[in-house]
Amino acid sequence: MKTNSDTFIGCEAAFTAADIVLFGAPFDSTTSFRPGTRFASRSIRGDSYGLEVYSPYQDKELTDYHICDAGDLELSFGRTDLALSDISETTRMILSHGKLPFMIGGEHLVTLGAFRAVAEKYPDVHVIQFDAHTDLRQEYLGAELSHATVIRRIWDVIGDGRIHSFGIRSGEKAEFEFARAHTHLYPFHLNRVEEVVQKLTGKPVYITLDLDVLDPAVFPGTGTPEAGGVDFMTLLSALLAVSKLQVVGADMTELSPQYDLSGASTATACKLVREWLLALSARQL
Amino acid sequence: MKTNSDTFIGCEAAFTAADIVLFGAPFDSTTSFRPGTRFASRSIRGDSYGLEVYSPYQDKELTDYHICDAGDLELSFGRTDLALSDISETTRMILSHGKLPFMIGGEHLVTLGAFRAVAEKYPDVHVIQFDAHTDLRQEYLGAELSHATVIRRIWDVIGDGRIHSFGIRSGEKAEFEFARAHTHLYPFHLNRVEEVVQKLTGKPVYITLDLDVLDPAVFPGTGTPEAGGVDFMTLLSALLAVSKLQVVGADMTELSPQYDLSGASTATACKLVREWLLALSARQL
Amino acid sequence: MKTNSDTFIGCEAAFTAADIVLFGAPFDSTTSFRPGTRFASRSIRGDSYGLEVYSPYQDKELTDYHICDAGDLELSFGRTDLALSDISETTRMILSHGKLPFMIGGEHLVTLGAFRAVAEKYPDVHVIQFDAHTDLRQEYLGAELSHATVIRRIWDVIGDGRIHSFGIRSGEKAEFEFARAHTHLYPFHLNRVEEVVQKLTGKPVYITLDLDVLDPAVFPGTGTPEAGGVDFMTLLSALLAVSKLQVVGADMTELSPQYDLSGASTATACKLVREWLLALSARQL
Amino acid sequence: MKTNSDTFIGCEAAFTAADIVLFGAPFDSTTSFRPGTRFASRSIRGDSYGLEVYSPYQDKELTDYHICDAGDLELSFGRTDLALSDISETTRMILSHGKLPFMIGGEHLVTLGAFRAVAEKYPDVHVIQFDAHTDLRQEYLGAELSHATVIRRIWDVIGDGRIHSFGIRSGEKAEFEFARAHTHLYPFHLNRVEEVVQKLTGKPVYITLDLDVLDPAVFPGTGTPEAGGVDFMTLLSALLAVSKLQVVGADMTELSPQYDLSGASTATACKLVREWLLALSARQL
Amino acid sequence: MKTNSDTFIGCEAAFTAADIVLFGAPFDSTTSFRPGTRFASRSIRGDSYGLEVYSPYQDKELTDYHICDAGDLELSFGRTDLALSDISETTRMILSHGKLPFMIGGEHLVTLGAFRAVAEKYPDVHVIQFDAHTDLRQEYLGAELSHATVIRRIWDVIGDGRIHSFGIRSGEKAEFEFARAHTHLYPFHLNRVEEVVQKLTGKPVYITLDLDVLDPAVFPGTGTPEAGGVDFMTLLSALLAVSKLQVVGADMTELSPQYDLSGASTATACKLVREWLLALSARQL
Amino acid sequence: MKTNSDTFIGCEAAFTAADIVLFGAPFDSTTSFRPGTRFASRSIRGDSYGLEVYSPYQDKELTDYHICDAGDLELSFGRTDLALSDISETTRMILSHGKLPFMIGGEHLVTLGAFRAVAEKYPDVHVIQFDAHTDLRQEYLGAELSHATVIRRIWDVIGDGRIHSFGIRSGEKAEFEFARAHTHLYPFHLNRVEEVVQKLTGKPVYITLDLDVLDPAVFPGTGTPEAGGVDFMTLLSALLAVSKLQVVGADMTELSPQYDLSGASTATACKLVREWLLALSARQL
Repeated sequence: MKTNSDTFIGCEAAFTAADIVLFGAPFDSTTSFRPGTRFASRSIRGDSYGLEVYSPYQDKELTDYHICDAGDLELSFGRTDLALSDISETTRMILSHGKLPFMIGGEHLVTLGAFRAVAEKYPDVHVIQFDAHTDLRQEYLGAELSHATVIRRIWDVIGDGRIHSFGIRSGEKAEFEFARAHTHLYPFHLNRVEEVVQKLTGKPVYITLDLDVLDPAVFPGTGTPEAGGVDFMTLLSALLAVSKLQVVGADMTELSPQYDLSGASTATACKLVREWLLALSARQL
Repeated sequence: MKTNSDTFIGCEAAFTAADIVLFGAPFDSTTSFRPGTRFASRSIRGDSYGLEVYSPYQDKELTDYHICDAGDLELSFGRTDLALSDISETTRMILSHGKLPFMIGGEHLVTLGAFRAVAEKYPDVHVIQFDAHTDLRQEYLGAELSHATVIRRIWDVIGDGRIHSFGIRSGEKAEFEFARAHTHLYPFHLNRVEEVVQKLTGKPVYITLDLDVLDPAVFPGTGTPEAGGVDFMTLLSALLAVSKLQVVGADMTELSPQYDLSGASTATACKLVREWLLALSARQL
Repeated sequence: MKTNSDTFIGCEAAFTAADIVLFGAPFDSTTSFRPGTRFASRSIRGDSYGLEVYSPYQDKELTDYHICDAGDLELSFGRTDLALSDISETTRMILSHGKLPFMIGGEHLVTLGAFRAVAEKYPDVHVIQFDAHTDLRQEYLGAELSHATVIRRIWDVIGDGRIHSFGIRSGEKAEFEFARAHTHLYPFHLNRVEEVVQKLTGKPVYITLDLDVLDPAVFPGTGTPEAGGVDFMTLLSALLAVSKLQVVGADMTELSPQYDLSGASTATACKLVREWLLALSARQL
Repeated sequence: MKTNSDTFIGCEAAFTAADIVLFGAPFDSTTSFRPGTRFASRSIRGDSYGLEVYSPYQDKELTDYHICDAGDLELSFGRTDLALSDISETTRMILSHGKLPFMIGGEHLVTLGAFRAVAEKYPDVHVIQFDAHTDLRQEYLGAELSHATVIRRIWDVIGDGRIHSFGIRSGEKAEFEFARAHTHLYPFHLNRVEEVVQKLTGKPVYITLDLDVLDPAVFPGTGTPEAGGVDFMTLLSALLAVSKLQVVGADMTELSPQYDLSGASTATACKLVREWLLALSARQL
Repeated sequence: MKTNSDTFIGCEAAFTAADIVLFGAPFDSTTSFRPGTRFASRSIRGDSYGLEVYSPYQDKELTDYHICDAGDLELSFGRTDLALSDISETTRMILSHGKLPFMIGGEHLVTLGAFRAVAEKYPDVHVIQFDAHTDLRQEYLGAELSHATVIRRIWDVIGDGRIHSFGIRSGEKAEFEFARAHTHLYPFHLNRVEEVVQKLTGKPVYITLDLDVLDPAVFPGTGTPEAGGVDFMTLLSALLAVSKLQVVGADMTELSPQYDLSGASTATACKLVREWLLALSARQL
Repeated sequence: MKTNSDTFIGCEAAFTAADIVLFGAPFDSTTSFRPGTRFASRSIRGDSYGLEVYSPYQDKELTDYHICDAGDLELSFGRTDLALSDISETTRMILSHGKLPFMIGGEHLVTLGAFRAVAEKYPDVHVIQFDAHTDLRQEYLGAELSHATVIRRIWDVIGDGRIHSFGIRSGEKAEFEFARAHTHLYPFHLNRVEEVVQKLTGKPVYITLDLDVLDPAVFPGTGTPEAGGVDFMTLLSALLAVSKLQVVGADMTELSPQYDLSGASTATACKLVREWLLALSARQL
């Protein structure tokens, strides 16, 4: 009889043995347009069994590395502050054991919880953001903690010149102005990822992937689909490139599986998780 | 050219001329299982044009009464406290003009916002609840303001013996025990509605309708479908019965239109809105 | 190798050998709210293979009778008048061979095409209507030929006292007034079917079944779901009862299969087709 | 951090401590019309968290009993014989430890695997079947092992007079004749369940619930929806009644969650699992 | 309280103050394959609030221009001639006030209504068509007014050499022959748009965008998806290019939102509306 | 009245007159992840009427050739061996009349049935595979006959160096090792198709197209979507190229229409069928 444990395929290491600890942060309470990212981590685990553990792109197998899928946090849907502090606490605990936290959202705001813990340990951390949206508002619908403000809140922590944003193609005019003044903005494309990788070599880096950086053709399963995005192979190459850096935290957010009944968005997210985990694992050995 | 104003069919009175003011409270931020009630009010307005303004059940027409559809509140998805106070403020304003507030949720928690304003004006108000769930938890996932606690929060305001709950068929053991000790609980059925109407005659009453009191066969478009509910004609009769009381506030919550792609749940909600508005209007003339 | 002919299960008699001729009228060009009934006949044929040819209700088998499924008409979507005259012509041809026409819509307006041919042959025909809506408007959105006017157009042909309507629960006030003045209206229920069967014994009868007479719980797959309808067994009993009359034409309209992704509405329509064909066949032997 | 074990709510007893062992048999390889029951057990586990552990119907809580959710079998989709023998082996193992096997299908054929093991231990076992279909074919599409033959295969094991079938409303003529000759057939309704319970008191009984016995209004999420079924409360009462017998094995089959996007069918199946487990647990104490 | 007016985001100018007047023509009565474009304008308005008013592509904001969203026409579904003359009348009225008509379909036939009014005022107008289909049939299913004949009917008005068609990849052989003889046909690609812009400089141009010119990967939400189309950025560039011409009328047709449950097609249409309105507005200042 | 025969558009030649015989093999009994390819052939036939018979890519019309759509096989869902031998028998019969078999699956395993018959007649046949997956397992879940083993079973028949695989991007490590040792593997792309066409000129070739070689953006309607595939025009070019060879059998598998509710995947499959049939027909004349 199969065990009824439910992990991402090939991520069955015990916590103590793991180099990377994957966990889910199923929270979408501030999503204003179309909710549903709360279902992402469960959906990714289940559909990961449509994948193989082997990557023909990297010629590596997940089962050759030590990755623990620690399950999902149980987060409050009524209190954003509590949800974020629970995420911070878990991330802090993972970091304190010398392991790499790899979080699956949830809406993009969950990044703030993980990032705060990472920034405590690595105060000189840089952030690489793959995203369709700037997420740089000062507040949104009266809330300072929102999916639409998450990168602004990260900027509150680390300040100018430490955020590197790729693929951005949506935001308010003021957000774009803020981005140009205070961050490194590479809109529309991922063309200059390699150049940034050169600059950041040797520095601690947190990578946050909002999956809506992908074109909606490739990834319709997200709350706010934004035409004009990148394709799968472009994103995969970029992820492999940045994973050669000294990555100290990583997350993938904004899959809303129920908006893509074909399952293709979830399958694409699964494949990105596998490839990214392999790239990060290879780096760490 | 048709105007692009968007109201519930037949509810085009100006605010100042209206006896009843309908408004939407599109908020589902604390919904823990499956969100989506935020889409209810917009969906109900649009699909109301599949209805007639005439009710063959009551032989009355909406256009013979004065009802204003005042549109939707724009509520914060990150801050539950703000959302509730915005709802209270609107309700208070409607009441201050001597009009009846009729709110369309949204998750059941929005009832708390409206009820608080009603209870300020009518401190001796009773509550009639049609619902599948007790909603009597003290807290849920760390939050005291939650769809699962809303009736408990109302009890905090008005205390023992003033809440009359029909159709309840789900909850924790402790909630049922609390219900039996502190409220009037009529589980599973609506059989005793008429009896309660007798008792409450002459008293101010707030009516809150969580649409999941209906059987999922009739109403699958809700976040937490709960088998064993009542059918449409039973609920309609009960609504007509309680509308003969001195109703000082009313709401209908928990339609999640996207879970019923057939549109039947939204159509059923529309028909209940029409019938209920007619019954409340007739009472007021 | 199975033939790629596509008929309703058990209806494979040649036209010349048949007592009943089933045909599809996939037209929904005047449907104002939600179109899709054009897909009904194809969907019913395909899903009929989820049924058996045997009815345990009547203890009869379709294959013991002679029924020809003659396929679908190809109707103009731009010209309502052409579509109706094509339907009339086909019906006339079937009648001229002494066979019973059994049409599957399409929107309810297709009934007019079939009925006109029937009324030519049987000028004293009565109509039994099972429906949620009166369909008695004089015109609708500027058109006199519309799903919302079909029964009024039939009244134009046969006049007062010859239309018997069951299950009606929606319409404009003026339509209900017209119905009470000029037709036999039995709203909300099918309780008095047997009584009407008594009265119409020996007279030619055309039966038109708008499937939205069923409750949306049972039959969500229709363009304008209207709560408060009848259940399957009630409708089945009524159909069996009226089929004992001298039926000279019959139709079933308003299945929109795509609004019920579960397939249950189509399956229910298939079962009604089987039962009705058996009842009509038995009568003829 | 929540464990990432994935069990039905409240069924977290260790195997050794359990009185009842729930397991999934995700197999639908012989389903000829519309597949998908393979997804049922996973779907039921996930959505069970929309329920409470407490039943207001029985005033009992799942957590007061000892139930182990042992997860899903991994069954071959290419070889029906292997799949069935794997199910038999697991059932035999559970029985050998003195525990009650409670299987969640899968298509109805999985019942044969479990039943064969039960009949080895209890050769005088009776079978109570709740179902829309007779499932009594000798073979189907060339296969003797099929969802459409499962009760015939059980009859092969136990012979005449030991099968008691309720709610049946579909099948070939020959199947109905076989049923009347060799089994106890109570078609269309569950009215005579209590009478059969009287007769079977003191005898070992295997109960197989094909969820399509429910009306499609209540339970559209199944491969072959069949109009005219029973409602939820009727089935619940029947299940509680038969659970007072000496039940030696039980299963629930034919949920296809993807055909009911509203989730209501899965929610209904979850509620039946909870109620049935409580009734069977109470009996055993 | 938000007003319940329902406009495209940022298009709230009064009619008198507007330079561009957007209106919806929700009509799909001649659609023969899969209807649903009637739902497009309402869907675009609602989902436009998932966009920003700011375009990072053009560095402009909608709120800096004067655009009136005048709502939807109420068109007859039974009489194509009436529907078209209603569209013509509205377009004529907009033109008579010196404003630019910008119509959102509906099926492609609605273009004929708007174009007729435009051609009255600008008899020397050219037409630029972005489309997957030629739409050049003389008649279709007996109707001369059909989505499949619309460009032929436009040719009836303006004759040879005035229609410039891009992206075409589907049609009958005779339609392609007609296109090569009487129009400028640039099949499969948009490569030669710039060349045509050169040629038409200074001439009045009507632009009609059938969204199925996009690849179904990018835009599955349409009645007749046709593989091998262009991507979003290619279409956006082409729209910006042609908007530099003297545009005297514009429309966008053939979104059927319900065929793309992910919402990505509607979101893409919204983004094209925003970008196109900005390009047309900038030109007019 | 239209006949109710149901063929792919323009494929109405009688068997005896045909050069190509199209047939469906609706079987998906070994599909382990998400079933549904059984619905493909019926869906392709129905939606083919959204296409024209004319190809602007090849400037040819289906109706100028002789193609028979012979309908669907009725295959056993319980016995894989029977299903495959039925497919072999049909293919053998088609070949014995000197016609080209063109099969529409079903899951990829159906290829084995057709291929076995082809290899009997053409023992030196080569295989060209377009696919996302290697399908080279020795066994899968205990079954040697499985969608995951089909190319391995073909290798069993024809041995080393005769299988040419394009677009592969998923499989176990051992499968890729096997592929490199025993077959010609051209992973990820179709770049080297022309080169292989050169090599195989004059040799009999069987072409098997697993539609999941397409990117999920283009073709989400498949059981196991695998990101990183090719686009439509690339596949079309490759199909036209290989069709110039001496093709002795061809199939297209793995459309699961129900996973792409937009219908775009089915439409794309239809277009590929049309183009492929035209290319194969032109070759034969």
